[in-house]
Amino acid sequence: MTRDDALALDAADPLARFRAAFDAPDGLAYLDGNSLGPPPRAALARLERTAREEWGRGLIRSWNSANWIEAPLRVGDKIARLIGARAGEVAVADSTTVNLFKLAAGALSLRPGRRTILTAQGDFPTDGYAMQGLAALLGGGVALRAAPAADLTQAIGEDTAVLLLTHVHFKTSARWDLAGVTAAAHAKGALILWDLSHTAGALVCDVTAAQADLAVGCGYKYLNGGPGAPAWLYVARRLQGAIASPLTGWMGHAEPFAFEDGYRPAREIRGLITGTPGVLALAALEASVDLQLEADPRLVEAKGLALAQLFIDEVEALAADPQLRLASPRTPAERGLHVAFAHPQGYALIQALAARGVIGDFRAPDIARFGFSPLYQSYVGVWDAAKVMAEVLSTRAWDRPEFQARAAVT
Amino acid sequence: MTRDDALALDAADPLARFRAAFDAPDGLAYLDGNSLGPPPRAALARLERTAREEWGRGLIRSWNSANWIEAPLRVGDKIARLIGARAGEVAVADSTTVNLFKLAAGALSLRPGRRTILTAQGDFPTDGYAMQGLAALLGGGVALRAAPAADLTQAIGEDTAVLLLTHVHFKTSARWDLAGVTAAAHAKGALILWDLSHTAGALVCDVTAAQADLAVGCGYKYLNGGPGAPAWLYVARRLQGAIASPLTGWMGHAEPFAFEDGYRPAREIRGLITGTPGVLALAALEASVDLQLEADPRLVEAKGLALAQLFIDEVEALAADPQLRLASPRTPAERGLHVAFAHPQGYALIQALAARGVIGDFRAPDIARFGFSPLYQSYVGVWDAAKVMAEVLSTRAWDRPEFQARAAVT
Repeated sequence: MTRDDALALDAADPLARFRAAFDAPDGLAYLDGNSLGPPPRAALARLERTAREEWGRGLIRSWNSANWIEAPLRVGDKIARLIGARAGEVAVADSTTVNLFKLAAGALSLRPGRRTILTAQGDFPTDGYAMQGLAALLGGGVALRAAPAADLTQAIGEDTAVLLLTHVHFKTSARWDLAGVTAAAHAKGALILWDLSHTAGALVCDVTAAQADLAVGCGYKYLNGGPGAPAWLYVARRLQGAIASPLTGWMGHAEPFAFEDGYRPAREIRGLITGTPGVLALAALEASVDLQLEADPRLVEAKGLALAQLFIDEVEALAADPQLRLASPRTPAERGLHVAFAHPQGYALIQALAARGVIGDFRAPDIARFGFSPLYQSYVGVWDAAKVMAEVLSTRAWDRPEFQARAAVT
Repeated sequence: MTRDDALALDAADPLARFRAAFDAPDGLAYLDGNSLGPPPRAALARLERTAREEWGRGLIRSWNSANWIEAPLRVGDKIARLIGARAGEVAVADSTTVNLFKLAAGALSLRPGRRTILTAQGDFPTDGYAMQGLAALLGGGVALRAAPAADLTQAIGEDTAVLLLTHVHFKTSARWDLAGVTAAAHAKGALILWDLSHTAGALVCDVTAAQADLAVGCGYKYLNGGPGAPAWLYVARRLQGAIASPLTGWMGHAEPFAFEDGYRPAREIRGLITGTPGVLALAALEASVDLQLEADPRLVEAKGLALAQLFIDEVEALAADPQLRLASPRTPAERGLHVAFAHPQGYALIQALAARGVIGDFRAPDIARFGFSPLYQSYVGVWDAAKVMAEVLSTRAWDRPEFQARAAVT
């Protein structure tokens, strides 16, 4: 592909208008929206309005007048549309980890005869940490099992209470068949709990068609909600009222302002919320999600996969480095919207690229990761980034001491 | 007291300079900082800089370059100074409810032969909800007991693992003896878990001198961190490494970026953090705490108690309403910085006051609550507010249909 070919793709891109909606630095190829999306201009404006007007002028009255109290469900309803859920099935609350804890504990309570939480080997570590903490708290009554990905559906057994799986793998970008794996879990009587952190805002997703039970996701990747944006959780309506959250706070109470001594959970999705919501961060997230909802998810997924393919093709065609290996599936339909290359000098490679204005990230031990966010990336930008990557590899430009020094956050 | 007396107190007020540091509406007597503090100007500026510069320009690099990664502990160290803790004993994380869950579960693990979580009857309901959720999850092995406040220390027994108590009561403002109750718990071998939500930024507090074990607090009351600001937790250094959080996420891992499959908690306070911190909200909170740290806590407490006393005295002297009853302790040293009046029409009273620019809040069934935040309130403002309150009561101005209609948030 020539640079003019890339420019022609941009000229024909139905999502091109979204670029101007983001406030990202010029001259930067930002290929890390799978880790932290850049700010939509509307999110910055909304954040400032919420802080200066709603907080500063409205003060406590804004819980009613600006409807802060409904924000977790209102924004949840919007995120629901991005994952194919219905209104009333998603709430914004807490962090992804905390939500996983709540839903896994709830899943165990819904399958009282079963004690195994099944995961895939090599899946996102922090999801596993949440399960380890839950199992340690419950003291031996819960078994954690991580099966090889290739044997995962066969590993679902009569004792499996819940299968926890990230839909798109955080390193390789390998994508599970949402409906197929859900059906396999259900065939054995197990529930499924999807981590959709790399899915929402990136891929066409239909949890309703897949009959998924439970899901969580974060707000700061493809949803562009800001650093450490609030997370969200999905509970299929058929499970609401039956599933019990162990993290019971006043916002999940049937009547939060009755201030009763005894906890009575709201039977709807609100019963899965815990404490006072983070209003400022929710405001930024809502504006970002509103922007995302303007884009056709089919166009988003198609463009993201096309950008990724362009990057793979150009890097592999141009980079003279036998140590570089694509660590993602070759078939676009089997991937999410990021691409992983394995390289023994992956960390230094990412630093050398950053020094040239191409921002990816590194995941130990050897993965250089690049995300393709369709709303603000252009074909020509990705084409240029692939050229830089190929040059850095071909010239071993990563081989400098300053690119080896590890920062606190990699 | 005359209005000129109040003006003279303001003229001599060593904290008067702080008023200009807040962005609060003119003409409003805002007596609800015990529920949501107004924005310090520095917090608004910091929030916008963090969003526009650190998020917008720095993007993912700001985890290192703006040191986002250290924010939970950096801000924790600052809050530590407000409660008499040492550096490394406080972390900002999650919500107050989630932190209570973590620390109560951790306390149970530190007292393995003991199964009772003791609280005081009528204490803050959501703190009790968190304990009820934990007990339900642990399934019968944990006993919850709420003792009458008058018998609380005698109720601590050989089976008490932890005593959970709000230092200042959310309704009455009654204040416990931090050191005395802590010593009573320790005398029976129990741990103590203080909820300092109404203490931090309001009262002189020394958890070190009191030998307190564990504490939590919110960021949006007297700390003025913004609506739904992140909460914080305190763990005395002697318990760190031994206490285990059940909410185990990557930010609490000894090496978060090693992405190991197995969870290894950080042995320091960071092991109590769970997921990715909310960077935007943390930035606002940090600027607010920085401002609070400029004020001498002894002056803060003294002025707050004096403002409260002025309000009580003037209201009681002027209000012709036999149904009004002070529901807070009469002795200033036995109170926090808010004051509760019981009135059968408490809800309508609060609405009628709001219509006249005096903002308090209502707590069911009959409590009208007024908070006195020393950094931005003036003696004359409180004097004027007391006059309005007395007039509303004496004229039964609350007796209008529009003041009876309940909003979603009371």
